[in-house]
Amino acid sequence: MARALELAARGLYTTMPNPRVGCVIVREGKIVGEGWHERAGEAHAEVHALRQAGALANGATAYVTLEPCSHFGRTPPCAQALINSGVRHVVCAMQDPNPLVAGRGLQGLREAGIETRCGLFENQARQLNEGFVARMERGRPWLRIKSAASLDGRTALANGVSQWITSPEARLDGQHWRARSCAILTGIGTVLADAPRLTVRDIELVRQPLRIIVDSQLRCPPDAAVLADGRALIVTCRADVTRHDDFTSQGVEVLHLPGTDNQVDLSALLRELGRRGINEVLTEAGAQLNGALITAGLADALLLYLAPSLLGSSSRGMFDLPALATLTEAPRLTINSLEPIGPDLRIQGQFKHN
Amino acid sequence: MARALELAARGLYTTMPNPRVGCVIVREGKIVGEGWHERAGEAHAEVHALRQAGALANGATAYVTLEPCSHFGRTPPCAQALINSGVRHVVCAMQDPNPLVAGRGLQGLREAGIETRCGLFENQARQLNEGFVARMERGRPWLRIKSAASLDGRTALANGVSQWITSPEARLDGQHWRARSCAILTGIGTVLADAPRLTVRDIELVRQPLRIIVDSQLRCPPDAAVLADGRALIVTCRADVTRHDDFTSQGVEVLHLPGTDNQVDLSALLRELGRRGINEVLTEAGAQLNGALITAGLADALLLYLAPSLLGSSSRGMFDLPALATLTEAPRLTINSLEPIGPDLRIQGQFKHN
Repeated sequence: MARALELAARGLYTTMPNPRVGCVIVREGKIVGEGWHERAGEAHAEVHALRQAGALANGATAYVTLEPCSHFGRTPPCAQALINSGVRHVVCAMQDPNPLVAGRGLQGLREAGIETRCGLFENQARQLNEGFVARMERGRPWLRIKSAASLDGRTALANGVSQWITSPEARLDGQHWRARSCAILTGIGTVLADAPRLTVRDIELVRQPLRIIVDSQLRCPPDAAVLADGRALIVTCRADVTRHDDFTSQGVEVLHLPGTDNQVDLSALLRELGRRGINEVLTEAGAQLNGALITAGLADALLLYLAPSLLGSSSRGMFDLPALATLTEAPRLTINSLEPIGPDLRIQGQFKHN
Repeated sequence: MARALELAARGLYTTMPNPRVGCVIVREGKIVGEGWHERAGEAHAEVHALRQAGALANGATAYVTLEPCSHFGRTPPCAQALINSGVRHVVCAMQDPNPLVAGRGLQGLREAGIETRCGLFENQARQLNEGFVARMERGRPWLRIKSAASLDGRTALANGVSQWITSPEARLDGQHWRARSCAILTGIGTVLADAPRLTVRDIELVRQPLRIIVDSQLRCPPDAAVLADGRALIVTCRADVTRHDDFTSQGVEVLHLPGTDNQVDLSALLRELGRRGINEVLTEAGAQLNGALITAGLADALLLYLAPSLLGSSSRGMFDLPALATLTEAPRLTINSLEPIGPDLRIQGQFKHN
């Protein structure tokens, strides 16, 4: 299964909106076939592995990182392919959270006389597909907030200067997190202050992640760098269709999602993104949008790069949160990893939701 | 030498103002004697080790973490003891930075026909005695700033609440850094806001570190908790002797050290502490004193505990520093270690001085 997870991870940048899945066929202690899902619309992991195993699949054990599918999607059901191949055992890491499958794949296998087991390396398998799992289980993507700050938690000087607080190594590491995301979310404040492109560079992709700009008052300049080089989506409270045309005419979608206080309804935005098959969202925004996402309980993970410098209390903070009266009200995380990246530190945490 | 360093570290909490030193005597590949300096005024590491080795020292090799002393202090010179014992080789990790020794110990050994080597595990040996080395080489202690903050660099809520941001595990870890310090430095702001005692609890000590309160306007209440349980020193700009008496009458020393803008001259304070044999100072203070020490280039190391919580931009910052125009002006550090402590993180860095 460890090998199957390794194979699944090869699809990290390419399977979206599908999950990353790996499969290994073992017969008499030897691997006779292996495969992974490479991209949506193409063959699933099990099909690749069975093809490699050929007649040797007969009587073998298949290890799959996700329950084999039981339905016709863009490809025929893998559960049926496994039955046809003659495998005797199927071990999967986790049940498919997709309501179209949800145990039916395993059930079909059992009904065909195949012994099944489920739950081996389940945590690792879920982690590999946290976006897909989140979308299936709760209808919205996995949202990871990226931030880069000094050791004293400052993302820019008081005068706005922020390029670059962290090292080239940390920025390159950040590219990998962009590449595995279906979408990059930012706010109009960041677009106006830093003019970022938010594209993936130096990593081979099937396609660039969708750039999403939360722009309640529609202040985005039509020639903003973030709108070039591929797909972009502007989310706004303004219904002014003439202004929308400035963007739609160049192929940029404008989504009208009014919320309270003339601010975009972020919860509705994430539900809409889930509906569109967005698994993982990486947020690269300022203190305001980051703070609003955290306060709304929409943030799942934090990816924090800390540079070994100090910018002082008058410099800009990371997250605008409502004033707290007691420490117990503070959003809390669990630290998942802690690593040096060049001269900087990378801290990964997961938000605790009550 | 690794063993000698291990032995030396046993004196971590007790040798002050002397350095921590370990010694191992090896004859024909076997350890025949070992020792460490336990406390000032008592026998040095070499004496303990030679006593254990007895006649076996003859022809042996002595590994010492610091150059053997050549002068009569409170004990006779160790270089002479080594010569008398008949050892053939002496390997030391570093030269003694004490100007009373500074190579003379090694020279004396060589003149007596003993082969010497110096520099084995030098970094580790210097690190073990960074306070002693700093005091000898530049006349002031090693100053370590301790801070505890949320992941977004906040040490207290806007309303001042700060107890406790970090976990009991992190606070216990902090006790070890107090215990190895000769003095704990704080500011009157912290004394008035948090009423800390700043004593070492749960660790056996020869004596409590000196508590030093920087209190430019002499606002400290005579019954402050920080003045109880042992030695304390108040440093002030106020020359008002009647007010001094409030403290001196209870055995608390008041040091008059006026500086510019009616603020205590921190540089003069550290020189005075060096003169008094203070090796390591641990600063547990607020944003203002911490910021002033960093800005004055007096901070050597940062001991930072980060709790996995977010307090938001309106909460209090870690360091008050002058506003910067460019990122290159920011104080920078090198990260030395990075560890989880309970649910929190501990980051250790060393300031880069230009």
